[in-house]
Amino acid sequence: MIKVGIVGGTGYTGIELLRILARHPECELVAITSRKEAGTLAAEIFPSLRGVVELPYSDPAKTDLSRCDVVFFATPNTVAMGETRALLEDGVRVVDLSADFRIKDVALWEKWYKVKHVAPDLVSQAVYGLPEVHRDKIRHARLVANPGCYPTAVQLGLIPLLGTGVVDVEHLIADAKSGVSGAGKKTEEQLLFSEAADNFKAYGGSGHRHWPEILQGLGEAAGKNVGLTFVPHLVPMIRGIHATLYARITKAVDFQRVYEDRYRNEPFVDVLPSGSEPDTRAVRAANTCRIAIHRPHDGDTLVVLSVIDNLVKGASGQAVQNMNIMFGLKETTGLAQLAIVP
Amino acid sequence: MIKVGIVGGTGYTGIELLRILARHPECELVAITSRKEAGTLAAEIFPSLRGVVELPYSDPAKTDLSRCDVVFFATPNTVAMGETRALLEDGVRVVDLSADFRIKDVALWEKWYKVKHVAPDLVSQAVYGLPEVHRDKIRHARLVANPGCYPTAVQLGLIPLLGTGVVDVEHLIADAKSGVSGAGKKTEEQLLFSEAADNFKAYGGSGHRHWPEILQGLGEAAGKNVGLTFVPHLVPMIRGIHATLYARITKAVDFQRVYEDRYRNEPFVDVLPSGSEPDTRAVRAANTCRIAIHRPHDGDTLVVLSVIDNLVKGASGQAVQNMNIMFGLKETTGLAQLAIVP
Amino acid sequence: MIKVGIVGGTGYTGIELLRILARHPECELVAITSRKEAGTLAAEIFPSLRGVVELPYSDPAKTDLSRCDVVFFATPNTVAMGETRALLEDGVRVVDLSADFRIKDVALWEKWYKVKHVAPDLVSQAVYGLPEVHRDKIRHARLVANPGCYPTAVQLGLIPLLGTGVVDVEHLIADAKSGVSGAGKKTEEQLLFSEAADNFKAYGGSGHRHWPEILQGLGEAAGKNVGLTFVPHLVPMIRGIHATLYARITKAVDFQRVYEDRYRNEPFVDVLPSGSEPDTRAVRAANTCRIAIHRPHDGDTLVVLSVIDNLVKGASGQAVQNMNIMFGLKETTGLAQLAIVP
Amino acid sequence: MIKVGIVGGTGYTGIELLRILARHPECELVAITSRKEAGTLAAEIFPSLRGVVELPYSDPAKTDLSRCDVVFFATPNTVAMGETRALLEDGVRVVDLSADFRIKDVALWEKWYKVKHVAPDLVSQAVYGLPEVHRDKIRHARLVANPGCYPTAVQLGLIPLLGTGVVDVEHLIADAKSGVSGAGKKTEEQLLFSEAADNFKAYGGSGHRHWPEILQGLGEAAGKNVGLTFVPHLVPMIRGIHATLYARITKAVDFQRVYEDRYRNEPFVDVLPSGSEPDTRAVRAANTCRIAIHRPHDGDTLVVLSVIDNLVKGASGQAVQNMNIMFGLKETTGLAQLAIVP
Repeated sequence: MIKVGIVGGTGYTGIELLRILARHPECELVAITSRKEAGTLAAEIFPSLRGVVELPYSDPAKTDLSRCDVVFFATPNTVAMGETRALLEDGVRVVDLSADFRIKDVALWEKWYKVKHVAPDLVSQAVYGLPEVHRDKIRHARLVANPGCYPTAVQLGLIPLLGTGVVDVEHLIADAKSGVSGAGKKTEEQLLFSEAADNFKAYGGSGHRHWPEILQGLGEAAGKNVGLTFVPHLVPMIRGIHATLYARITKAVDFQRVYEDRYRNEPFVDVLPSGSEPDTRAVRAANTCRIAIHRPHDGDTLVVLSVIDNLVKGASGQAVQNMNIMFGLKETTGLAQLAIVP
Repeated sequence: MIKVGIVGGTGYTGIELLRILARHPECELVAITSRKEAGTLAAEIFPSLRGVVELPYSDPAKTDLSRCDVVFFATPNTVAMGETRALLEDGVRVVDLSADFRIKDVALWEKWYKVKHVAPDLVSQAVYGLPEVHRDKIRHARLVANPGCYPTAVQLGLIPLLGTGVVDVEHLIADAKSGVSGAGKKTEEQLLFSEAADNFKAYGGSGHRHWPEILQGLGEAAGKNVGLTFVPHLVPMIRGIHATLYARITKAVDFQRVYEDRYRNEPFVDVLPSGSEPDTRAVRAANTCRIAIHRPHDGDTLVVLSVIDNLVKGASGQAVQNMNIMFGLKETTGLAQLAIVP
Repeated sequence: MIKVGIVGGTGYTGIELLRILARHPECELVAITSRKEAGTLAAEIFPSLRGVVELPYSDPAKTDLSRCDVVFFATPNTVAMGETRALLEDGVRVVDLSADFRIKDVALWEKWYKVKHVAPDLVSQAVYGLPEVHRDKIRHARLVANPGCYPTAVQLGLIPLLGTGVVDVEHLIADAKSGVSGAGKKTEEQLLFSEAADNFKAYGGSGHRHWPEILQGLGEAAGKNVGLTFVPHLVPMIRGIHATLYARITKAVDFQRVYEDRYRNEPFVDVLPSGSEPDTRAVRAANTCRIAIHRPHDGDTLVVLSVIDNLVKGASGQAVQNMNIMFGLKETTGLAQLAIVP
Repeated sequence: MIKVGIVGGTGYTGIELLRILARHPECELVAITSRKEAGTLAAEIFPSLRGVVELPYSDPAKTDLSRCDVVFFATPNTVAMGETRALLEDGVRVVDLSADFRIKDVALWEKWYKVKHVAPDLVSQAVYGLPEVHRDKIRHARLVANPGCYPTAVQLGLIPLLGTGVVDVEHLIADAKSGVSGAGKKTEEQLLFSEAADNFKAYGGSGHRHWPEILQGLGEAAGKNVGLTFVPHLVPMIRGIHATLYARITKAVDFQRVYEDRYRNEPFVDVLPSGSEPDTRAVRAANTCRIAIHRPHDGDTLVVLSVIDNLVKGASGQAVQNMNIMFGLKETTGLAQLAIVP
């Protein structure tokens, strides 16, 4: 059994990790830390765990995580970068669900996250945990930077097009829509039910932190810098990301086949039949990305629809997928949950 | 492996059965019938099943269900009563999720369902599938009448009080609230998003078919006729039933303890600590009923809060629980799914 | 033109007052105060007011409200009790939307609101602003205590039954359901979209502050103390209160007629035809209370359904209705808005 | 008073016309027809109208609409084209909310609507009722083709850019999102609450009927054919359209000013300050279009955000605006309703 610790288990990626790991046949949960809730049972905060997760939150200062085989950081940004080194030195492997190790260009990271990075050397060690791209590196990684939710949906949706000259990579557009849980459990006014329900809006007009992360991944796949207009929107639903991706076709190929070939052996990417439109509920609570490809009116604009559950394939599910790879387990272990419909 | 057939797999209880059974370690799905969708893959109607359920719907007229060990009816009322006899004669066991075999008094059933019952003798053979009450009979049943969603929530919430003289059983009140999926996938105007969203109302003022079913169960538990005012309401949410139950106290006892004692060994009934309020999401997609007991201002009215997921413990999950009992499996097999929160 | 000031215009009752008063033909808005937003245009916080409300919020410390004819307090509890006296002394009339002056028994108020009342003498001067009961007193009131949202729905629903011996007033039950805006614009975790959406729960099990307010009103109508079990619930919708009221019949009368007679001349109370079920959207954004009366199965329990929009008839609309009465205007002035359906 | 008739008043544009016209100071409602509901009071179908709209639906075959000054068609497509001629001959002016007269190229219309047009001569007489473009023609029109909801949001959002060479008009993109009421009150499975709630998806991948209508309007404004990729999406909210519009900049100008200049005198188009993001609720129930302009990272892609309420500025409100213009009333008469927030 893999001994698992979770740092910061009171937010939405934390409860989602608990939900998945509590039923993972190869894991044993040994610690969940929370400064604020130390001493409280996790099942008291999340009654959905009653009778299954018996662990209390423990004070991070008093918790010895060195006995863990792997530690997940489900913390706000800037926590993991301070605590990871000690864990690695103790031989503990780390999967960070925050943004601390995602962007290789530390100066760029510091610009967007508005804080000095305290462990830039670990950034270069970290493997970006998108298994469909970096599976081999993840296998041997000590530290995995789990991708953001938007970056997962957008990269999986665009990568098959890149590096092959079939689209104009300088003018990609990602019109992305997210359920409200994507913003976490922060008590911000705009996240209140009475503000977000029965309402729809764009946000982040002045730039979203996921933009440089996406650019990095797309640029790597394209083998050169790409251009991307990224507009995120807030949808009155709890879970789900829907990315509508636009690319100008520069060379017409059988795009449906390109995607099917690229993802044929991927257990968690599903290319829908031509003409389909995936809905976000078709992946609700599941670790799957579903993708459909359209070429409206046979014009020169390709439209790709990519959906994930932001808390699963966009966060905690993908983190467990990474752990499975790191520990040599079957990649789907503990992730067989089907989507909840309706 | 238990060979399972499903009659009528296109509605919400059907897809929920598919979701649960597809991951049930002791079941093999051998047929799903649908007159309307014969030939279509189930995963085409419900893309959430893609890659997991490969079966097409088959024409009921051309489907040999006699090779099944058990058949679930996820059909509208009045279908199962016509088809069950042949299956039983072939040695197939039946779990009917519709209302055809729930009410023992056939004349009463005919009054509420406004149709002549074609198999009254089977009604008397049928076991009412509320495991927390009838577990022993279910074990040997050939035909199980799976309870309705409201009846499950209300009975589990009130039964510990009955037969012991602690409350006035002639004036029970069940103020019940259901998510919209409780009405099924019918294309009725009032079930449209634009009608039901951001809205709340009572319905069934002239009487709801679950009322006689609940009365039967409560009466049995009380050992005499009971009186019940039952007012169902429609909540703008997909899944979930919340029953707020009121009973006049006739003899003060430690009600919290009464409930804890009654349900101590029940794997799917969770009595919350005193002072709690269960929310429906704490059982979303899980086969659990959570119950809390209140006595406001130490007055003479007891308030019991009981929540279930109408499609799981209120339908398909309970049906699988019944199947597990019927086939001597561990009762929780295939039903370990934790609730989806948030 | 009536010169109007609003203290605390950044919450939901504040924006609702602005929406109504901006179109009120007899009012001129002269000041909206907010400590936090002083200097900001109201239309910047609420773009729905752009082009119509040109006023900025002003610092309460620097705002002379004595030039107003009437001031509305749309503030958290305990603000109005401190500021009302000075306004009254300046000849300004006051409508307080908070709870400061609602409960006549100051000791009881202090127990529930957990703070010492600083103006108990004003409590006895204040008129409880439920026009359907206190219209004559409101006409001459200097200070009106605008009722709470639950108290409005419950009192309008029960009052016709009281004082006439037709029901058992010692065991009334109010199972009440509220949209999330009823809790205001507070950034509390349980009010987040991801917590409240697709979910339903009871709350306030240990007692809700509206309970003594309701008891006071019902007791007055009954001419004696009444008993009330009050269970509030949170509905995943923005606006709307639905009270389902239960009373044991002690003398059978034509209840439908009792209600129709009681409310025949009320412009804002609508008794639906027998057999109806009001939905909350039928009063969304309107100052109307709709009521329906049921006697299920001709039993001895009467069921009354009462719906209002918590922000209109349950708060700001009723406040304007009170102002209209106080200033001798037609009671419906500025309140003709029809409900928004769908 | 203008005598008004409504053909087909049971759908969402019908109820919205009733809501607006019932409070319009210059209108008298003389007839509402409905084949299905003939004899029923409108207020019985829509209790929100109780006490205000006393009219019953009347059988269209027995209703003399020739006494009306104006008739609104709130009918499914293909009804108005059959009935308009007789009304015009009787001197009645017509505003058609359906698509029958919107597209000038009759063959194109027939291709998209899959039916032969029975009154092609009237198509050429009809004025396309987008007041911000065709106000002068509307003034004298006998027949106004009221624009579709998507076309209104997209055209108002893009027109200021067209005809001036500042963007590449051959590759415009409209990523549009609509609340569910945009699809009307049809009892289709995908419009059920349990299907559409807590879910998001694109639809119309194979082409949407609003596409040629938008192309016509944009082409007219550009003075040449334009290219448009149009992807509509279904949002789990009742009302609201949000169009996110992308255009490649070919000549950098002060885009904010271009929009402000274009719409300076428009009573129902509001250009937000630079950097804003309009939310759909800021126009909920109001006849306003709010627009914001962004140029992310100062790149060469312009992003325009345009929101309307699909039932108001996208349908019934705009229809009344057109009527006001046709009858020489102040354009805002009866349309002063502020948006409902929250």
